[in-house]
Amino acid sequence: MSTEAQIAYRNELLAHGLLHATDVDGLYARSGVFEDIALGIAALVSRNGAAEKPEVMRFPPGMTRGTLERSGYLRSFPQLAGTIHAFAGGDPEHAALLATLDRGEDWTSGQKATGIAFTPAACYPAYPIVAKRGPLPADGALLDVQSWCFRHEPSLDPARQQLFRQHEHVRIGTAEQVLAFREQWLQRGRAIIESLGVPFDVDVANDPFFGRAGRMLAANQRDQALKFELLVAITSKEKPTACCSFNYHQDHLGHAFGLRTADGATAHTACVGFGLERITLALLRYHGFDPKAWPDAVRRALWG
Amino acid sequence: MSTEAQIAYRNELLAHGLLHATDVDGLYARSGVFEDIALGIAALVSRNGAAEKPEVMRFPPGMTRGTLERSGYLRSFPQLAGTIHAFAGGDPEHAALLATLDRGEDWTSGQKATGIAFTPAACYPAYPIVAKRGPLPADGALLDVQSWCFRHEPSLDPARQQLFRQHEHVRIGTAEQVLAFREQWLQRGRAIIESLGVPFDVDVANDPFFGRAGRMLAANQRDQALKFELLVAITSKEKPTACCSFNYHQDHLGHAFGLRTADGATAHTACVGFGLERITLALLRYHGFDPKAWPDAVRRALWG
Repeated sequence: MSTEAQIAYRNELLAHGLLHATDVDGLYARSGVFEDIALGIAALVSRNGAAEKPEVMRFPPGMTRGTLERSGYLRSFPQLAGTIHAFAGGDPEHAALLATLDRGEDWTSGQKATGIAFTPAACYPAYPIVAKRGPLPADGALLDVQSWCFRHEPSLDPARQQLFRQHEHVRIGTAEQVLAFREQWLQRGRAIIESLGVPFDVDVANDPFFGRAGRMLAANQRDQALKFELLVAITSKEKPTACCSFNYHQDHLGHAFGLRTADGATAHTACVGFGLERITLALLRYHGFDPKAWPDAVRRALWG
Repeated sequence: MSTEAQIAYRNELLAHGLLHATDVDGLYARSGVFEDIALGIAALVSRNGAAEKPEVMRFPPGMTRGTLERSGYLRSFPQLAGTIHAFAGGDPEHAALLATLDRGEDWTSGQKATGIAFTPAACYPAYPIVAKRGPLPADGALLDVQSWCFRHEPSLDPARQQLFRQHEHVRIGTAEQVLAFREQWLQRGRAIIESLGVPFDVDVANDPFFGRAGRMLAANQRDQALKFELLVAITSKEKPTACCSFNYHQDHLGHAFGLRTADGATAHTACVGFGLERITLALLRYHGFDPKAWPDAVRRALWG
C-alpha cells in the first residue's frame, strides 16, 4: 500500500544514515542527528505550553492492560493495539520452547499475556492517574505528556512507523474548559509548525476506526468536528501526512476512567498531539538532510 | 519478594510525586523532576564518551523478533523476554473479542505474535545493523546507544521496574579492542558515579540465567569475570543495586549476528550500560527528593 514517493523518501533517509532499517517494516533505529531534531521539537512544544504550568508526566512505552481495556481502544482500533506476552513455564516448557525454536517453528504460542499493553496514544496512561486523585479542582487538570506509542500497521512509508513518539498536552475538565484548550492549541500548533518553516493545512479528520461499524463512527466524528489534523505534504500533496492532531473526546474517556469535575459531573477531555517522528520527517523534507545547513530561524526554534 | 525497605522507599517516591503507580507492579509514570534527572544522567554518560566519537543510535523500545531469537536471550532468560502480540481477525473475530471482554473473561488468547519483541537490553538492536554493513574497519565499531527495555519481573522494588531505560556504549572488534574498552569504561563508570556524590562498590557479577542449567552458566560467567557491576546501596547495604554493568560477551554475539573483524574473524563485543532509572533512584536516595537542594557539584555534573 506504500507509494513510490514514500519508498523513495525512505530510501533517501536510509542512504543518509538518518534512519537504520530492520527486517520489520515500520521499525527503525534513529541516528543522533534524527534524534536531536525529534527532541528539539518536543522541547519547543513544551516551551509553548509552559505558561499555563502543566503537570509534566513522562510515560514508559507500556501501560496496564486494564487501561487499554477500559479506554475503548479495542472496540475502535483492535487491529492497531499491541499486548505484551511472556513465557510463564518451568524447565520442561523451556526445553520445549528451545526445541521449537531450533526447528525454526513458531515458538510464540506458549507466550501468555502480561498485565502490560503497548501504549497506543500518549495520553491514555494519564487518565487513571488523574482519576485516582478524586474529583478535579475547579480549574480542571492540564498535562504535558510524552510516550513511545505502538500501532500495528507495517508500512514502507517512513511517516507510518510501528513505534513512534507522541508529545501531547492533555486537558481534563468541563466541556467549556477543554474546548477552549483545543482552540488555543489549534492556534499554537499552527504557530509552532510555521516557526519551523514547513507549509501545512489544518482540516477536520477522523480516526481509522475498524470494520463495518467503523465507517459510521468515522462519519460521525467528522460531522461533529471532534478531530482536526495539521497536515504536511511530506511525500504527497494529495495525501498529506497528519503531523499534529487536536482531539475532543467529549465525556467518553471521562466515563471510561471515572474522571469527575469539581461538582461531580463526568469530566470532558481533549488532547493535542505532536508526532515527533513525522514532524522530523517534514523538516528533513523541506530543509534538507543536513540540519547544520537549515535556516537560522528554524535552528533557533529547535535548539535555542 | 520485595523487602520492607524497598516498599518504604517506593512509598516515599510516590508520596513526593516523583513516580506515579499503576495497577501493575514495576510500571510507573515519571514526573518531570524524575525525568530531568534521568536525562541529565544520559547526557553526562554521552559527554564522557564523546572524545572517541562513537556513532550515536537511538532505538525504539521494540526490536525484531528475529533479533531476540538470534541473540540467545530465549535460551538464557526466557522468563524476562516480552513479545508483542496483535489482533489479526475481521469483523466476526472482533465481535467475539468484544463479547469476551464484556463478560470480563480473558480475550488475549486470540492475539498473534507480531514481528516485534520488546528490547531486553539496549545494545541488541545495534548488532544486526552493524553486521549488515559487512566486515568492520580495522579499528572496529564504537556506539553510543539508548533504549527503553522490558523485563518481565513484577516487583515492588522501585529499582526493579518492568520498563526502564539503559544508556550504553558498545564496542565491536577484536578481543583486545573490546577488553581495553571495558577497562576504560570501568574507570569512567567509577568517575561518573563519583562525580554524582553517590557511594558505590564494583564487583564481579552474573546475569539471572534461567532454570537448572542457568546455575552453571552463572558460575561460569563469574569464574571468567565476564561481567562487573557498579553497585549502590539504595535500599540495602547487604543487597546493593546494580546501577551500571560492564559486560564482555566474548564472541557469542559476534557468532549470533555474523559480526566480522577486518580480517574476517568473528568479532568480539562488550557493552557498558548505565541504568537511568536506577541511578536516578540512587541520587534521590543520597541527596534527597528535591534536586534544587542538591550539592552544586552534582547539579553541574547533570545539567551543566
